Amino acid sequence: MLSEFDLITEYFTRPARTRAESAPAVALGIGDDCALLTPTPGMQMAISSDMLVEGRHFLPGADACQLGHKCLAVNLSDLAAMGARPLAFTLALAMPEAQRPWLAEFSKGLFALADRHGCTLIGGDTTKGPLTICITVFGELSPGTALRRDAARAGDDIWVSGTVGDARLALAFYRQEFAFDTPLADACANRMHAPTPRVELGMALAGTARAAIDISDGLAGDLRHILQRSGVGASVDCDSLPAGPDLASWPRALRRRFGLAGGDDYELCFTAEPAARERIVQLAQQAATTVTRIGRIEAEPGLRIVDADGAAVDLALTSFDHFRTA
Amino acid sequence: MLSEFDLITEYFTRPARTRAESAPAVALGIGDDCALLTPTPGMQMAISSDMLVEGRHFLPGADACQLGHKCLAVNLSDLAAMGARPLAFTLALAMPEAQRPWLAEFSKGLFALADRHGCTLIGGDTTKGPLTICITVFGELSPGTALRRDAARAGDDIWVSGTVGDARLALAFYRQEFAFDTPLADACANRMHAPTPRVELGMALAGTARAAIDISDGLAGDLRHILQRSGVGASVDCDSLPAGPDLASWPRALRRRFGLAGGDDYELCFTAEPAARERIVQLAQQAATTVTRIGRIEAEPGLRIVDADGAAVDLALTSFDHFRTA
Repeated sequence: MLSEFDLITEYFTRPARTRAESAPAVALGIGDDCALLTPTPGMQMAISSDMLVEGRHFLPGADACQLGHKCLAVNLSDLAAMGARPLAFTLALAMPEAQRPWLAEFSKGLFALADRHGCTLIGGDTTKGPLTICITVFGELSPGTALRRDAARAGDDIWVSGTVGDARLALAFYRQEFAFDTPLADACANRMHAPTPRVELGMALAGTARAAIDISDGLAGDLRHILQRSGVGASVDCDSLPAGPDLASWPRALRRRFGLAGGDDYELCFTAEPAARERIVQLAQQAATTVTRIGRIEAEPGLRIVDADGAAVDLALTSFDHFRTA
Repeated sequence: MLSEFDLITEYFTRPARTRAESAPAVALGIGDDCALLTPTPGMQMAISSDMLVEGRHFLPGADACQLGHKCLAVNLSDLAAMGARPLAFTLALAMPEAQRPWLAEFSKGLFALADRHGCTLIGGDTTKGPLTICITVFGELSPGTALRRDAARAGDDIWVSGTVGDARLALAFYRQEFAFDTPLADACANRMHAPTPRVELGMALAGTARAAIDISDGLAGDLRHILQRSGVGASVDCDSLPAGPDLASWPRALRRRFGLAGGDDYELCFTAEPAARERIVQLAQQAATTVTRIGRIEAEPGLRIVDADGAAVDLALTSFDHFRTA
């Protein structure tokens, strides 16, 4: 049987030559009581932690490779929303039993994404238990450039990266919330199972954009965190939202609802002064990501959803809450 | 009902004035996509992550205050084993439901220990799920002073802090492994439920001791990690082990077995050159911790257990392994 130490050696310890290029920051990796990082002089360290539980954040029997990808992706997305460059991460993994095929696939998906972003696994924990994955990720950024939730100012444009709503559409398909005429497109399913963290865009925006957040619980709910922390309000044109290619062919009411209140998109919602518009578009192009202006920060508190003509739209949206949702 | 954001505000966000004194390192705490730490110039960051699962690392219905203490204690113990000064930690918490009395007790135990060591909660995650607690802890130390597992040298003394075996004795009591004439002493139960991380001792030893590890899976098994990583062997006198006050009154065979193979003690096992003996005792006194010499590092690989006369003792010990133990 596979022991705790064997499985760490076999699936999570990698020869030095395959390690990500950021390795100079890693003074000591897996195998001791602690890992040691040598911070770049003058830089701040950005830290985020996310826990994914089977049956809650992913379906029982989820593809292990996609799951390995997703649990790191949601953490890298937090670094992106801060504007930080990924350095390293720890992985704590509880699972009912140590199965070789599952571990091989999980670590494949995990390391493929980690390598793409130069992010090194430096330690963690493995234990028996209900399938639960907790990753803590470390990045760095220059002091004063972080994209904080409390930095939005009245008059700022509100932007969103990529497209929104397709992850929610995939969930609706799996839940059979309504009738689908055709099978779910792979691209749409991937928005839910294997989201793309906007790491390059976040790093590019640091120091230029003002506030940012990643969209995990739904655009409207996540934007509200920015509004509350910044003490401002906003108007958002719900028909300007860049709908995912699959959601785009559905009726307007669904586009509005899934665009504003669908979670799991892992796009960035950010604000910037109007004078930075050209610069923002330029930075997004360099990061190979589209960006769309969807509204404006206003002094009056509250989030106002309007249509293309500026008329109020009442959608009664709710954001995802782990302790209020069955 | 208590929402995810309410429970973070109520139980895990603290007014600035009650925060630990290390707060200058914390540039941004709970409430954004990431926390921001400002590393002390020239220092390395030590990072460790531990996950505790109900029914695995603690009994169902465990006292919430002690549990809050323990899940941070095991992480601080990893910092201690590296010789690092605690700075901050993240907490990821999955629980079946958000109950106010449980959260109040859990956070009380957690913060009491955190404050004792100037360790600030800077972020994390809460979600619905089987009770699982994952803490990642951050400390710092001067480059070159870390107590690494690969640093033991032939000729080094082997030391252990405090006493060993009482945590294992408490477990034997709960499991009814044999007959106990009297109820379990509180002090003995506390060794299992509320271990004391040897943070001050670890910091004091950094730069003086060579290798170190904290005893979580049993002294013999944990010492073997040092031996393997350092490419050395050792002799340990199993009758020199400082037995816990409760274990001390039990027969020698049990003292030997629980001293060498009992887990959950969270004492430090470390090595140092014989020339440092006086200095080690002095540093331990300053850290208000006893230390005992229990053996010696040798060039010949393997761990040899001997009695006070130097005769070999065969105890057929096994170390704890999460995937081999039912």
